[in-house]
Amino acid sequence: MQPLYKEEFRYQAVERTILDMIEKGLLSPGEKLPSLRQMKATTGFSLTTVNQAYLELENKGIIQARPRSGFFLRTVVRKAPKVTINKPVKPACRPVNRSSMIHSCMESVGDPRLIPLGLALPHESLLPVKRLSMVAAKVMRYQSARGMAYESVQGNKDLRSKIAFRSLDSGVLYNPEDLIITSGTLEAITLALRTVTRPDDTVLIAEPCYFAFLQILELLGLKAVSVRSCPENGIVLDDARQVLEKFKISACLLSPNFANPDASLMPTERKKELVRLMALKEVPIIEDDVYTELYFTESRPEPLKAYDQKGLVLLCSSFSKTLAPGYRVGWLEPGRFREEALKVKAGTNPHSATPNQMIVAEYLAQGNFDQHLKKLRRKVYCQVEAIQQKIGCVFPREICCSRPTGGMFLWLKLPQGVDAWELFLNAQAKGVAIIPGNVFSCHQGCLNGFIRIGCGHPLTPRIEKGFNILGELVNEMANAKKKAYKHLQASGLA
Amino acid sequence: MQPLYKEEFRYQAVERTILDMIEKGLLSPGEKLPSLRQMKATTGFSLTTVNQAYLELENKGIIQARPRSGFFLRTVVRKAPKVTINKPVKPACRPVNRSSMIHSCMESVGDPRLIPLGLALPHESLLPVKRLSMVAAKVMRYQSARGMAYESVQGNKDLRSKIAFRSLDSGVLYNPEDLIITSGTLEAITLALRTVTRPDDTVLIAEPCYFAFLQILELLGLKAVSVRSCPENGIVLDDARQVLEKFKISACLLSPNFANPDASLMPTERKKELVRLMALKEVPIIEDDVYTELYFTESRPEPLKAYDQKGLVLLCSSFSKTLAPGYRVGWLEPGRFREEALKVKAGTNPHSATPNQMIVAEYLAQGNFDQHLKKLRRKVYCQVEAIQQKIGCVFPREICCSRPTGGMFLWLKLPQGVDAWELFLNAQAKGVAIIPGNVFSCHQGCLNGFIRIGCGHPLTPRIEKGFNILGELVNEMANAKKKAYKHLQASGLA
Repeated sequence: MQPLYKEEFRYQAVERTILDMIEKGLLSPGEKLPSLRQMKATTGFSLTTVNQAYLELENKGIIQARPRSGFFLRTVVRKAPKVTINKPVKPACRPVNRSSMIHSCMESVGDPRLIPLGLALPHESLLPVKRLSMVAAKVMRYQSARGMAYESVQGNKDLRSKIAFRSLDSGVLYNPEDLIITSGTLEAITLALRTVTRPDDTVLIAEPCYFAFLQILELLGLKAVSVRSCPENGIVLDDARQVLEKFKISACLLSPNFANPDASLMPTERKKELVRLMALKEVPIIEDDVYTELYFTESRPEPLKAYDQKGLVLLCSSFSKTLAPGYRVGWLEPGRFREEALKVKAGTNPHSATPNQMIVAEYLAQGNFDQHLKKLRRKVYCQVEAIQQKIGCVFPREICCSRPTGGMFLWLKLPQGVDAWELFLNAQAKGVAIIPGNVFSCHQGCLNGFIRIGCGHPLTPRIEKGFNILGELVNEMANAKKKAYKHLQASGLA
Repeated sequence: MQPLYKEEFRYQAVERTILDMIEKGLLSPGEKLPSLRQMKATTGFSLTTVNQAYLELENKGIIQARPRSGFFLRTVVRKAPKVTINKPVKPACRPVNRSSMIHSCMESVGDPRLIPLGLALPHESLLPVKRLSMVAAKVMRYQSARGMAYESVQGNKDLRSKIAFRSLDSGVLYNPEDLIITSGTLEAITLALRTVTRPDDTVLIAEPCYFAFLQILELLGLKAVSVRSCPENGIVLDDARQVLEKFKISACLLSPNFANPDASLMPTERKKELVRLMALKEVPIIEDDVYTELYFTESRPEPLKAYDQKGLVLLCSSFSKTLAPGYRVGWLEPGRFREEALKVKAGTNPHSATPNQMIVAEYLAQGNFDQHLKKLRRKVYCQVEAIQQKIGCVFPREICCSRPTGGMFLWLKLPQGVDAWELFLNAQAKGVAIIPGNVFSCHQGCLNGFIRIGCGHPLTPRIEKGFNILGELVNEMANAKKKAYKHLQASGLA
């Protein structure tokens, strides 16, 4: 993992000291931590730094402050081991057919009676609710007539300027005239796919791949061929090469930065090589960049677009994971396909909602977005850490969990024999909603040993209860499998 | 035409008196009208009624009040003759391919430098800007967190209840649980088409047909077969019967109430027969109902859905023509296809924008919508009348103009030999944007003798200038054609 925020180095040293103590058996769950002064003496840092570090650990859910008593160790801080990559499967190109399975998952996750452990959006406590509400009220009151009229096909000009300005950070400077505002990232991706493909074409995707992409492919009558992806390094380039040789690929649809569901990040060199590979065969790359801003490292990872010399990358993103999911304000930077993309936009959804665009443009103009993002990243990082700890605590030892450096997902490999879809159904029956790995694969029966955990929600008592239930279930199911296996073995059948 | 608002009978009597005077040569453009007292004496109505009638005529742009001088006749009140139906063409089923032509028109109409005579949306002066802005500001300020979160796939529950409640007027009572909120009517139609058709299927449409429908058909890879429609009675049922016999039709896509572009209204008996015809063959009907509320007659014309006993009608509508175009809040009542439609919605645009739905729901809850609609209808009616007058004034005598009883369009048949696409290009060069008939047909070269005029904008001096320019152009083009024809005749070639 790349270095964390500079100011966090010292906090990390404090954290490491505590982890050391746990490993050495000096500290057990429920026990009191060294006092601030003791820790100051041990680490040599100032009292303020140590205090900050303790608060940080509290935020992460690792320790707990008790009034007038000091800090106590909350959970066993055993992290689940890393997820590794799947074995290669023979690449195959096939029509996508996942709709009904995905629909069940969406219904489960959207059911307010269930504890949501699978959600892919930031909790409202992570968003600038108050400031955005003030901006929104102002815009709605004073620019109401404009807000009621249709926006142009390309979208609000001020907003496009602001997005273009912000693109500086990513190593590519967009031209506002090239951007197309969309109703969220999914519209941008649908638009991009319609721009560069025709029904029956084949699209290269990752395995695992965000289920909404699979649904879009299915609805557009596109075929998919998948290449393996691992949480550490994203897609396997050798797989991509093989696929390019074997199939006529009309487009790639990939999320190089903190992909949904495995939060994988492609290293820079792989990104460059991928863009080069595709450029050789003139294959357009549809790049989903929606989680990029949620990096836990020093700086924003660059998009594939930063290495795109031929205008082949169509970048799709939105404010749904960083500012206001419900506003549905996204964008497409269509590379050299601007004209065609505009035609498709004009032909299906010629005007994305006007007031939403105005509000986001005005919010960006006020200049607090970067400050908000900084806070958001820290909070999401803390939540991801806390949930990892929790998973390490309640799940059986055989579980594997990704160690993301950004995004808001954990990708869990279940103990052998535990079926994700079965777990999904069992969990639902016990009041917990998760997303099983199956829906992230275009191959029937694949990824059925994985689940996706969303980390957008803080580890509240309710969410914690959800993890307890889920952990118990996985334990039960794993034990039942082991028992059945032993039984089979005993009877000489295994 | 059905009787107008009751209170308008007397105003009409006053109007007729004035028209009589003009016909008898007693009154010419620019001349002063009889005073209120003279008119009172002539008609026997009260001073208030006569005054109201004069104000009405002023609203319609027929007369002009001059301070301290009385009322003056503004334009020659000759209405263009009615448009009649086209000759039948042999029905043919073919892929749709109109995108680039439509794109040019959309660009022209959206260009702020051009005078827009083709727009399909109500001017802001017709919308409850102030009240909606207050509601919006309130919602955004006090329910901001909810507004930022994703809405459910089906959409805001309060909004669905309100829409269901309002459906009482239309003769069908919806169940809020059946409604799906969409981002405008076009999303509802796309959704409906995707629900009941597969690529390469054939869809029955009207000729003329709203160009956005043609674009959607094209993008979904659907084929179209068209049946004739006339401004007075909507589609010709004999054509529909013939098409049903000859082709395998997967769905109809029709606008029985005040269709775009010819504002045609199907009589009740035709509606019933159409639904019966389709039910016999189990053909789903996708009904675009977006202009229905803009009726100039006594009551709301009923949708096809009112006669739908098999759940075959998928009704699509929105608030885009009545409340806030830019909000993109529409709905689909999917009949018996609820489950499938929800799946398609979840698979492409799972969450329509949240705050927009909340604002419309709150606005409807405040109970002023009907009052607003009443005003809106009257204003649109006046604008349609005024623009008809203007057209009668500035265009050559050979022009034919529809006489709609609702909606916001006039459908003009150009003098023989004047090509609509040529007129579109010429008008654009002179700073006027219109929509040529060509883009409303799925057949190459058809409807090239028609143009659509939008009546959503009041007849301001700028719009009036636009009509003057357009009228002059049509005159020129018609004369040039006549001359060329005479020349040909003289040289014995014609």
